[in-house]
Amino acid sequence: MPTLDEARAKLALANRILAHEGVLDAFGHVSVRHPSDPGRYLLARSRSPELIEPADILEFTLDSEPVVPPIGFMYGERVIHGCIYQARPDVVAVCHHHSRAVLPFCISGIALQPVDHLGATMGAVIPFWDQRDEFGDTDLIVAKPEEGRSLARALGPHWVVLMRRHGATVVGLSLEEMAFRAVFSCRNAELQREAHMLGAVSPLTPVEIRKAGAFNVEPRPIARAWEYWGTRLRKAEAV
Amino acid sequence: MPTLDEARAKLALANRILAHEGVLDAFGHVSVRHPSDPGRYLLARSRSPELIEPADILEFTLDSEPVVPPIGFMYGERVIHGCIYQARPDVVAVCHHHSRAVLPFCISGIALQPVDHLGATMGAVIPFWDQRDEFGDTDLIVAKPEEGRSLARALGPHWVVLMRRHGATVVGLSLEEMAFRAVFSCRNAELQREAHMLGAVSPLTPVEIRKAGAFNVEPRPIARAWEYWGTRLRKAEAV
Amino acid sequence: MPTLDEARAKLALANRILAHEGVLDAFGHVSVRHPSDPGRYLLARSRSPELIEPADILEFTLDSEPVVPPIGFMYGERVIHGCIYQARPDVVAVCHHHSRAVLPFCISGIALQPVDHLGATMGAVIPFWDQRDEFGDTDLIVAKPEEGRSLARALGPHWVVLMRRHGATVVGLSLEEMAFRAVFSCRNAELQREAHMLGAVSPLTPVEIRKAGAFNVEPRPIARAWEYWGTRLRKAEAV
Amino acid sequence: MPTLDEARAKLALANRILAHEGVLDAFGHVSVRHPSDPGRYLLARSRSPELIEPADILEFTLDSEPVVPPIGFMYGERVIHGCIYQARPDVVAVCHHHSRAVLPFCISGIALQPVDHLGATMGAVIPFWDQRDEFGDTDLIVAKPEEGRSLARALGPHWVVLMRRHGATVVGLSLEEMAFRAVFSCRNAELQREAHMLGAVSPLTPVEIRKAGAFNVEPRPIARAWEYWGTRLRKAEAV
Repeated sequence: MPTLDEARAKLALANRILAHEGVLDAFGHVSVRHPSDPGRYLLARSRSPELIEPADILEFTLDSEPVVPPIGFMYGERVIHGCIYQARPDVVAVCHHHSRAVLPFCISGIALQPVDHLGATMGAVIPFWDQRDEFGDTDLIVAKPEEGRSLARALGPHWVVLMRRHGATVVGLSLEEMAFRAVFSCRNAELQREAHMLGAVSPLTPVEIRKAGAFNVEPRPIARAWEYWGTRLRKAEAV
Repeated sequence: MPTLDEARAKLALANRILAHEGVLDAFGHVSVRHPSDPGRYLLARSRSPELIEPADILEFTLDSEPVVPPIGFMYGERVIHGCIYQARPDVVAVCHHHSRAVLPFCISGIALQPVDHLGATMGAVIPFWDQRDEFGDTDLIVAKPEEGRSLARALGPHWVVLMRRHGATVVGLSLEEMAFRAVFSCRNAELQREAHMLGAVSPLTPVEIRKAGAFNVEPRPIARAWEYWGTRLRKAEAV
Repeated sequence: MPTLDEARAKLALANRILAHEGVLDAFGHVSVRHPSDPGRYLLARSRSPELIEPADILEFTLDSEPVVPPIGFMYGERVIHGCIYQARPDVVAVCHHHSRAVLPFCISGIALQPVDHLGATMGAVIPFWDQRDEFGDTDLIVAKPEEGRSLARALGPHWVVLMRRHGATVVGLSLEEMAFRAVFSCRNAELQREAHMLGAVSPLTPVEIRKAGAFNVEPRPIARAWEYWGTRLRKAEAV
Repeated sequence: MPTLDEARAKLALANRILAHEGVLDAFGHVSVRHPSDPGRYLLARSRSPELIEPADILEFTLDSEPVVPPIGFMYGERVIHGCIYQARPDVVAVCHHHSRAVLPFCISGIALQPVDHLGATMGAVIPFWDQRDEFGDTDLIVAKPEEGRSLARALGPHWVVLMRRHGATVVGLSLEEMAFRAVFSCRNAELQREAHMLGAVSPLTPVEIRKAGAFNVEPRPIARAWEYWGTRLRKAEAV
């Protein structure tokens, strides 16, 4: 079990990796469940993910209340994280993002589907959450506990949920696995869009999704990708 | 109230940020209203925005005459700035650009519309200015006072105006807020174009545009994005 | 004939060149036939191509068994390499990749065709391998010898084979020539997709494909491209 | 009038600028007419443009024969340059390229047209040269004097000629002006393709093309762009 300091360092790294790989930009955020207390989670103060250092990481209860009152701003949408950790005891890491790759699906309503072997990591079902169904016309921000709970219900037992006109939320059983799902769901979205422009696109078969999805989250592929992303980030930060 | 030196430094920074974020390239320009004299504005000498230093910043009257006759070239289209500052006392910052993101809309005439929560920052109406309506076939440059006044009339009370076959002009209540509107209108244009290729695209609802637009220009999101862009620029310039 | 150390160094370089030019990312791999023993080939341990150093290179029999049992993971899909070296005595280098350029063709099933003079390097026929034809619904990974043999049969006497929902495999008579075919087949795929969006796309004529394809793999173009890619990589790695 | 050494240095710089701005890659080449002898031109030895140094520049007669027999390879397509300098006494600089921006037009046959004010720099007519009309099925390379003369005839009095399935050739009255035409014809091609995906695209009006085209090649815009491209290159090369 990692110490709290190790967990903070790894969460800061995951933030910067997902920014460097194009999943996150000025906005979006990444959290991890507390390494020894499943009733808490770690999340940065309000700051762009590319800039997050271990000292920026705060500790929250699953009601998304800070354990120690922080100096300065907190992310306005942290209920996304708390409500998912409450609803999904298996989930260890959460990323909410607005990547350019998935937004065309969030805008058009065309279903995101696994179209290649790496995209199978998303799972067979990628739910689409339309905030209007329960809350009518809003500012599209997920700031109230009931909004977070509604999103968590839409996610259900799945790994990726699209949010109408807003972005996506991705979960995983570890930071590394969640990052893998986040990067390759964005890549699948880009490929699906570009294949769509060539002709009709269908998803993988259900058996392919199950088999390829299981293969992708084995230790070897996840370790290879995590080493790759980390090395790329280190080179970029050394400049 | 910032001193003139501080205003020059911040305007140079805003030029380089908007170049680094892909809004500006060889052409385009950014201005800010004079910090203590609302009858004047600051704008660089004729030079690409990525290269602007505080020493490049000149001072103009709202008739776009230089307060001190400069050595070398001035931007040919500075009436865009002067005429908007005359017509819109609320406006503190103006950017005119030809970004690749918005040009497909300026060329095709397809309406740019807010399609996601960050795009709501553009406002509900993005006017389309066709220079031919008043001036017939021109060189498409906005160099005469009457052309600048016509563009300012087309902008009206809005934040972004598209210019047929030419580009866009974006205004704001501060340099930071204007930069936010400029970056996220370009991003909205990219997303709208890509969503368009997937299927029919509609705008946000009017209530969503109003609510999300108001949320986005609150201090927290603007400060987060400005810190992010500034840090990215500093890292790029340190290379 | 290069020594084994020279072959290892050049293979590591080819890995990093193809990563830097966008053919390879976290996944994919490159091999070369052993310089003095045509019954063996060289391939890295399980690691992302951008990170490969000469010390990562292992030696395999054509049955894809390691000559010396390695420490740590091996690539799961190395039968792609062994089976092609068995079936194609002329082939000296093999690259398996999932580049974003070719995947839209692997997903949509639209035929990849040579559309410009550099794309003629692919040859007139780019076979499409559908793993389902022989193996039904799989995890889409080519890990079993019979899967590798099936892919090698699909490749036949050609230079590039597309793999349904997965990627491509490219072969050549030297590392440099194979890299040329890999880079310019990706580029052809991008151009074909973008031309497709403008209007109907047809391939080059059969005579053009034969003549331009022969011209492209002469020593002069291959040497020019290899020097270019190597210099670009060296500059990027020196940062 | 620049000295020969100054001309060599500037031509090397123009090569690297056009590579850095994405017009040239492994292939393509740039030449300039000899500064004191209009019957000669300067062109690099066979090497990728990004790598060209002043010492790589050779001197050719307008028959594309080297004035001093060089060590190593020469570009195979140098007749493009010689034949255009023969046919067009006004032309001072020539660039032949295969940029990704224009190739979709060379492949689909859809007409490239000036669609925005900077694209007007191409002129109203961009001829399309189909090598098959005179030479049947070839390797698509322009290596013979009669092929170079045919291309020069197709170019006629214009500034940009598209070459079926191959690329483009751009000419100008100086290296700076030619670079301006080359960069902004690529940009126009990208914008036209992206606007095409939004809806029907028409060109500027004939009067707009004439007026905006004349404005763009005045000293001020050309100097601004040349300073910008040169500074960007210097920063990239200093890394």
